[in-house]
Amino acid sequence: MTPSAEFTPATHRRRLAGAAAAARDRGLDALLITPSPDYAYLLGYGAPALERLTCLVVPAEGEVTLILPRLEEPLARHELGELADEVELIPWDETDDPIRLVRQYLDGALRVGLQDQMWARFVLRLRAALDPAELVEAGPAMSAMRRIKDADEVERLGAAAAAADAAMSAITSERLSGRTEIDVSRRIRELLIEAGHEAAGFAIVASGPNSASPHHVPGSRMIEPGDAIVLDIGGSRAGYASDTSRTAFVGEPPAEVAALYGVLREAQAAACLAVQPGVACSEIDATARRIIDDAGYGDAFIHRTGHGIGMETHEEPYLVASNPDPLVAGNAFSIEPGIYLSGRWGARIEDIVVCTESGGTRLNTTSTELIEVE
Amino acid sequence: MTPSAEFTPATHRRRLAGAAAAARDRGLDALLITPSPDYAYLLGYGAPALERLTCLVVPAEGEVTLILPRLEEPLARHELGELADEVELIPWDETDDPIRLVRQYLDGALRVGLQDQMWARFVLRLRAALDPAELVEAGPAMSAMRRIKDADEVERLGAAAAAADAAMSAITSERLSGRTEIDVSRRIRELLIEAGHEAAGFAIVASGPNSASPHHVPGSRMIEPGDAIVLDIGGSRAGYASDTSRTAFVGEPPAEVAALYGVLREAQAAACLAVQPGVACSEIDATARRIIDDAGYGDAFIHRTGHGIGMETHEEPYLVASNPDPLVAGNAFSIEPGIYLSGRWGARIEDIVVCTESGGTRLNTTSTELIEVE
Repeated sequence: MTPSAEFTPATHRRRLAGAAAAARDRGLDALLITPSPDYAYLLGYGAPALERLTCLVVPAEGEVTLILPRLEEPLARHELGELADEVELIPWDETDDPIRLVRQYLDGALRVGLQDQMWARFVLRLRAALDPAELVEAGPAMSAMRRIKDADEVERLGAAAAAADAAMSAITSERLSGRTEIDVSRRIRELLIEAGHEAAGFAIVASGPNSASPHHVPGSRMIEPGDAIVLDIGGSRAGYASDTSRTAFVGEPPAEVAALYGVLREAQAAACLAVQPGVACSEIDATARRIIDDAGYGDAFIHRTGHGIGMETHEEPYLVASNPDPLVAGNAFSIEPGIYLSGRWGARIEDIVVCTESGGTRLNTTSTELIEVE
Repeated sequence: MTPSAEFTPATHRRRLAGAAAAARDRGLDALLITPSPDYAYLLGYGAPALERLTCLVVPAEGEVTLILPRLEEPLARHELGELADEVELIPWDETDDPIRLVRQYLDGALRVGLQDQMWARFVLRLRAALDPAELVEAGPAMSAMRRIKDADEVERLGAAAAAADAAMSAITSERLSGRTEIDVSRRIRELLIEAGHEAAGFAIVASGPNSASPHHVPGSRMIEPGDAIVLDIGGSRAGYASDTSRTAFVGEPPAEVAALYGVLREAQAAACLAVQPGVACSEIDATARRIIDDAGYGDAFIHRTGHGIGMETHEEPYLVASNPDPLVAGNAFSIEPGIYLSGRWGARIEDIVVCTESGGTRLNTTSTELIEVE
């Protein structure tokens, strides 16, 4: 369940009105929002995504309706608080057809946006029931709002980043050799919670040759002298995500590692410095990539430079070569180039950066140097 | 991430072949399976559901293909082990269009089943790219397999149930009054892990009037004498779910509570006894409902009698009035009638039951009596 954001009812009223306006701007008659971060963003509480349909109907004009299983109604009423005065709750019983209820409350809408993570089973049933309405992605409308963080959201991202930094500092002060990846990963999860996260989301510990696998799942490998270790950790605090990566080395790194890490560090710093309103997302990616390419390791940087972050760890805007969108003040995203030499070692440096009117502000503040550990 | 089931490669080969056969049986040319319990069931490891498309293409005839982001390839190859010899991995780069790759590997398929929980953004893009192919739900094909548990799966469900029972016995031996719901819920999560779950899934603690809300989220309410407390707890062990509910009462229950609880207990026991191959799911629901109806509390039993359970806490078959499917040996499901008196109190009793050739076997074995606690 998405942690409650606990913003004021006024914030949620503004967001609901913003969603309706975003729908109008895109020629949509309504948005259908099933349980997801979008749902929690609009209503302030996280409902579980289950086989029983819960669906918020946000028309471009008119009243907002929440269609939900009757057994979820008491919880929804409690969580909505005074917002329940403005959202009509329509509970359905176990033998009712909730798709028919959605059709009824859509009231003839001809162009309907579906929440990005809505389950296929509901999409396919809605398609049949709403024919000939056109079903399109609600993602662009929702992310138009969500990708621009207000001051309160930036503060929460900052608090989450500070908590992740504390956990990163703590784990890299411990002896890591002689421990398995999974043990270190479990320890990081504890440290993430101790540092103030409500939930530990992930704790990648990729050691030795595993450090060349960007999304390695920590396993039984024992960390030993001469290992590079990619640590990519994060969680959720007050409804907002943290995500930071650092690379450690057990003992003194060989010259090749130190040199290549220096290239990576330069690329990451350059990409952070390039952040300005109006600069294309693709250009931030290109800034990091050019430096790694020029050093002859372009093929080893096998992923995009970064992803937006907010209530979700991955959201708009994506810093990828194919995204021409210009950055605007309030965007928050990771900058995380990596270099991966298959079967040998890898490294990644990741900070969360907020775009402000005067450039990028790093929310993660631990040193980006290669960390020597025991 | 879904925990790895760690079955043998032979099991996964059989499941992949079964999925292809289930597709053929339903006139489908292929199934598209995105990260989900279906994905883990087939491949033996859980990939994260993310904005980057990972999609297993299971044709009715021919070779299985796994289209995945390049940065996920090392992990997939590692997790698949020898199964990687039979699944062709097609990695895509950050600026590639993975939807086009899916179309290419579908090779002109005209009727395609989509995994139930596939994200709407992918469904809508596939619809556009695969036109004029017909897109239908893959759920019936996948659940035809998954709803029938083999001996190994029943053993895992039994081990998970035993762990949940241990946690339930432990928490109801503790003093509960004077503690908040959220504190008791946190304690249950610890107990679920101590008892052998890899992950604590949920720990509903609904006290006093909150016990009338079936999916109550534990809050700051202090438990006090005279409270009914619905405890609904579960987690995951070796890839399979547990889920059990018991009702406790702080001090001696008033006569009305004891009497109504007696009706509930009779209804739950009767529904368990009614389990036999060939009996309709709706009939199990009706068995419990008739007893509560006859006592005059039909309106207070506001949800279905149960849900299937396996790798997911909620899956087929559902024990609901609208489901005429007959039970077959190997089905595993909850039987969990409840009575909810809004604003006053509620109660629920939930066991996991497996249908065998000779009737139902309860996997939860703690007493179903109303538990007096301090």
